[in-house]
Amino acid sequence: MAYNSIILRLEMNHALVNFGDVASTISKAGGDITSIDVIRPGQETSVRDITVHVADHVEAQVVESLKQLEGIQLINVSDRTFLVHLGGKISVQPNLPIKNRDDLSRVYTPGVARVSTAIHENPEKAYSLTIKRNTVAVVTDGTAVLGLGDIGPHAAAPVMEGKAMLFKQLAGVDAFPICLDTKDTESIISTIKAISPIFGGINLEDISSPRCFEIETRLADELDIPIFHDDQHGTAIVVIAGLLNALKVVGKRMDQVRIVVNGIGAAGVSICKMLLAAGVKRLVPVDRDGAIVRGGTYPYPMWSWLAEQPQVEDQPGSLKEVIRDADVFIGVSRGNLLTAEDVMSMTPDRIVFAMANPNPEIDPEAALPIVRVFATGRSDYPNQINNVLVFPGIFRGALDCRARRINEPMKLAAARAIAAVVSGTELNEQYIIPSIFNEQVVTKVRHAVIEAAILTGVARRIPPDFR
Amino acid sequence: MAYNSIILRLEMNHALVNFGDVASTISKAGGDITSIDVIRPGQETSVRDITVHVADHVEAQVVESLKQLEGIQLINVSDRTFLVHLGGKISVQPNLPIKNRDDLSRVYTPGVARVSTAIHENPEKAYSLTIKRNTVAVVTDGTAVLGLGDIGPHAAAPVMEGKAMLFKQLAGVDAFPICLDTKDTESIISTIKAISPIFGGINLEDISSPRCFEIETRLADELDIPIFHDDQHGTAIVVIAGLLNALKVVGKRMDQVRIVVNGIGAAGVSICKMLLAAGVKRLVPVDRDGAIVRGGTYPYPMWSWLAEQPQVEDQPGSLKEVIRDADVFIGVSRGNLLTAEDVMSMTPDRIVFAMANPNPEIDPEAALPIVRVFATGRSDYPNQINNVLVFPGIFRGALDCRARRINEPMKLAAARAIAAVVSGTELNEQYIIPSIFNEQVVTKVRHAVIEAAILTGVARRIPPDFR
Repeated sequence: MAYNSIILRLEMNHALVNFGDVASTISKAGGDITSIDVIRPGQETSVRDITVHVADHVEAQVVESLKQLEGIQLINVSDRTFLVHLGGKISVQPNLPIKNRDDLSRVYTPGVARVSTAIHENPEKAYSLTIKRNTVAVVTDGTAVLGLGDIGPHAAAPVMEGKAMLFKQLAGVDAFPICLDTKDTESIISTIKAISPIFGGINLEDISSPRCFEIETRLADELDIPIFHDDQHGTAIVVIAGLLNALKVVGKRMDQVRIVVNGIGAAGVSICKMLLAAGVKRLVPVDRDGAIVRGGTYPYPMWSWLAEQPQVEDQPGSLKEVIRDADVFIGVSRGNLLTAEDVMSMTPDRIVFAMANPNPEIDPEAALPIVRVFATGRSDYPNQINNVLVFPGIFRGALDCRARRINEPMKLAAARAIAAVVSGTELNEQYIIPSIFNEQVVTKVRHAVIEAAILTGVARRIPPDFR
Repeated sequence: MAYNSIILRLEMNHALVNFGDVASTISKAGGDITSIDVIRPGQETSVRDITVHVADHVEAQVVESLKQLEGIQLINVSDRTFLVHLGGKISVQPNLPIKNRDDLSRVYTPGVARVSTAIHENPEKAYSLTIKRNTVAVVTDGTAVLGLGDIGPHAAAPVMEGKAMLFKQLAGVDAFPICLDTKDTESIISTIKAISPIFGGINLEDISSPRCFEIETRLADELDIPIFHDDQHGTAIVVIAGLLNALKVVGKRMDQVRIVVNGIGAAGVSICKMLLAAGVKRLVPVDRDGAIVRGGTYPYPMWSWLAEQPQVEDQPGSLKEVIRDADVFIGVSRGNLLTAEDVMSMTPDRIVFAMANPNPEIDPEAALPIVRVFATGRSDYPNQINNVLVFPGIFRGALDCRARRINEPMKLAAARAIAAVVSGTELNEQYIIPSIFNEQVVTKVRHAVIEAAILTGVARRIPPDFR
């Protein structure tokens, strides 16, 4: 259920109505008043801004019932979500002011020529003398934005700007949104390569499957800065983190459980890969036509790769068939695919991560009573699988050690670090994943990622705290 | 002559040396002490940071003579220009903090989905709900950076960052540097088109001639946001501004003077075009092989275009020949091409803009006594032709009225606005161009540019102060 904040500006005629009437009308219609500002006080009439927290589906009802109240004139309804977007959500700031001609001659011509010459003579100096060392491009083609699909680069921009805000606030990373007006794989690759020099890393975002696989792989091979498709790996890393803790809660082991992963797109492929890297021995990837089985032939290279893995089961079947006797269900597919009966066919102490948005693969109200650990992508239930837990820390770490790439050991280290933020005493069915506002998350993920980068030889710099 | 600030950290042994010795040693070697900070005071020894303003060619001398002074230990020499570049010169900042889950749900998922949907339904809303309305890309391929030539995209970055600082400080424009790892015309065009959705305008920078012409023309035709190659038009606009005022000083008219423009590259072509638009009737464009004459055939489309203009003279000749009887010389070429004798062959009350960097077309010391108005690109002589006067205001105006493009009338309006900042009572031979720190510049250029955009039908929005 989606909530929103609206601001109702209204004029009250004190002879006809009092604030109690207004408040109870709003409450009865389903709204929750969170603040009141008097804009113009007065003897006969007054104007107030009333901020109301309201579920999307009753918003019209709140507005309508106020309009019908005698003595009230509704001047304006503004939407706080739209208000915070006016003019965009990020800005570019100089790191120091240019106060006089002397300052100007240092940051611009003629002084800057010596700095440019120094980089020309030794390109590595770009990391110390330009923004490269702390700057990431958040790149999308707008084809798979949230649950909205292919809405194009302009409409994708607010999501990328939001991401840039999170990068800065949570990890101090300067991120800039790049929204591409092309959907062609080759053109996306060549564009990103062409603009790469100013960036220390590339966060790919909301690029639809299967193009996202080739784009990421090619860029990782052809550029020497880290490339990270967040929809694949961000989600996968939090899933693994949550699963590590969920298994602790139920007392099972990664190498013993049977896991069904439903939806083998961008996130599903990365989840399967990470599960295998984490030691899973019994994996059942499922897509629309049922289980992807060992030895099968498939139209996508990623599915074929799965079909070659010895840990993937060879028994075909529909989702409803293969979920029987599974210990873990991980869904990154569509809403309402599973019934309570399906879930009951799993082993006892079952773990269900139903991450379809906005409606999970099984109705949370139906699932909660019958599973041991339940997680979704939503914030209104416990255990939210949110990739905001991942990208700030993983890039903070990759930038700080100037990693050439973000490899599997670094991703697995990030997952373990997130899981470790929840201490043994805190851990329980309702709390397997830390909050994104937990300040330990970025610190621990950064540390784990740098350590893994150094161990696997992709770090080009040892940060001071690792020397 | 290029100056620099260095910071000398030194330990003084008070028994052997006093600060007077240090100061006089620095002065004798050619350094000018601008500040002193005591880092560690002490009875026997003390450590101080001494900031010294020094010409590049005597910097080594200053350092060397200090090292030879008894009782002094030179701990470190840092360079202020390099110090201000450490970590880069700009950063990306959120416009509001994300304090809690409620904030998060507005700027990111799930709330942002409604904003994205609104833009998807009406792409024009990108101007109100994203950073597009205030954001400009500063794009280079690093092929013609300052006087350094083709130093590549990484080495070009400090210049682009400096430009982004100026954009923000002088005009409140958010500018982000894009340094391209390609020199291919088609690839540059397709890359800029691909990344254009987030930007409200494109400032092309330091792209070598003749590729810069096609890149700018094609982008202007194929995109609906303003494209502006600063090296061409920024320089041309300040030249026209300066010339308007210089002609007032000497009492000549634009439609009567004979003008020689030397160096028909990026800036020279734009200067010629603007001179023609400003009403010049007698123009002599000159390049390495001498005058480009009416009716001639030339290898570059821009030269051929000039040869078709009725205002271009049809008499061939070398620079030294055609400069005879010219009223105005405008050089955007190489240093030391002209002698005092050449300049003396011009008409009385001659105007010389010698803008080659770092050495002008004629030695300023030789030119100043024999010309009425003299301008260069340098800050150590009066009348600096500096395109920092142009780009902040022209983009401020273009963004505020959502101009589809920056056309010739807008450029000419900008030139007239810059000229008009110098009032009639202030105007004299030494002051034809305002300082870049004069706050009227951006305000007046913006106003003039918006007015011209509205009059020529390229404005898509009427700013509130024009309604």
